[in-house]
Amino acid sequence: MANQQPEVDGVKRIPKAVIRRLSLYSRVLQNLEMKNIQKISSKELSEHLGQNPAQVRKDLAYFGQFGKPGVGYYVADLRAQIKRILRTDREVRVAVVGAGSLGQALLSYPGFLRENFRVLAAFDVDPEKVGTRLRGVQVFPIDELEQRIPLLGVEILALTLPRDSAQDVVDRAVRCGITAILNFVPARLVVPPHVKVHYVDLTIELESLAYYLK
Amino acid sequence: MANQQPEVDGVKRIPKAVIRRLSLYSRVLQNLEMKNIQKISSKELSEHLGQNPAQVRKDLAYFGQFGKPGVGYYVADLRAQIKRILRTDREVRVAVVGAGSLGQALLSYPGFLRENFRVLAAFDVDPEKVGTRLRGVQVFPIDELEQRIPLLGVEILALTLPRDSAQDVVDRAVRCGITAILNFVPARLVVPPHVKVHYVDLTIELESLAYYLK
Repeated sequence: MANQQPEVDGVKRIPKAVIRRLSLYSRVLQNLEMKNIQKISSKELSEHLGQNPAQVRKDLAYFGQFGKPGVGYYVADLRAQIKRILRTDREVRVAVVGAGSLGQALLSYPGFLRENFRVLAAFDVDPEKVGTRLRGVQVFPIDELEQRIPLLGVEILALTLPRDSAQDVVDRAVRCGITAILNFVPARLVVPPHVKVHYVDLTIELESLAYYLK
Repeated sequence: MANQQPEVDGVKRIPKAVIRRLSLYSRVLQNLEMKNIQKISSKELSEHLGQNPAQVRKDLAYFGQFGKPGVGYYVADLRAQIKRILRTDREVRVAVVGAGSLGQALLSYPGFLRENFRVLAAFDVDPEKVGTRLRGVQVFPIDELEQRIPLLGVEILALTLPRDSAQDVVDRAVRCGITAILNFVPARLVVPPHVKVHYVDLTIELESLAYYLK
């Protein structure tokens, strides 16, 4: 991992790993809030995070000065700042393409709602599903992708559809403005440079675990 | 990432990222097999993998000599070798703890079956679910974990249960011999050094994606 902070057009490039850890920090802070913990030292916070204190300080330093020397961090304030940095201090609208069993699990995934993600539409080709509500979410025909995405203000697509149709759906979604994709389809997607794809590959997770079995 | 190969008791330590890529290579080779492609050059293989050729050669070199100079790789042979390395050249038995919607999606996840994983039991506390079959898989009461795991020969647990009960279940599972856990619960698990945990955190995937929205 690069530890440098290359400046591009005067903007610091933040390593991807830092962004992921911020999300983790946000969750740990939320748990502390729920336990009515208002202030926490840098060292204690690091222990809750399972990170070393230097790492936590360095991650946060990308974005400014947060803790107070001798006091530590104000839990609610730090969480609010991190949510602002991650741009999840507002409702983020998500649609799921592919309303199979994994897709349906995402429609009502409790962790998403807790972090201001609203899954507000599903798309599928199955005539049995189209027009119904699954777990409280309307299922639209996949043909209506281009029409519904801008109408609903969808910003992130979660893809859980069969591999063969994934690239076509991605091309169409990108043309109507989608710039962020959470991809569960076991296939590499080809996207323009301004589009970000995060891959969640359950089979690779499981298979790479099998290697360590005795 | 460390590029060295530290020798520990005469055994090469293989970086985790290499193991994950092997699983990816296996899948790409499977797709090539399905297209009846029998031989492939190192360069073509790399293109299919979306990796540079040097990376692929280096990853494989941890485990021996596979391709033939001037010929490339025999697709079926290389895949068989990789499955052997990953120890998925046999049926690997998996149980899911927590038969909510995500847990149920895992019970019938097509990618698992394709790679020799057999999900053969679910555990839950819900009396409505216990004793039934969900997606063809028997649901046992979570109290029977210690009894069923050895009986069924379960090697990997996938955890999709509420956070508060996760650590207790892990402690019990480890005591009855589980050494590999695929954890979907948004919590750090404390395990002894011989137990491997892979974390799949859907909320962090989604939240770290939101950062890149314009």
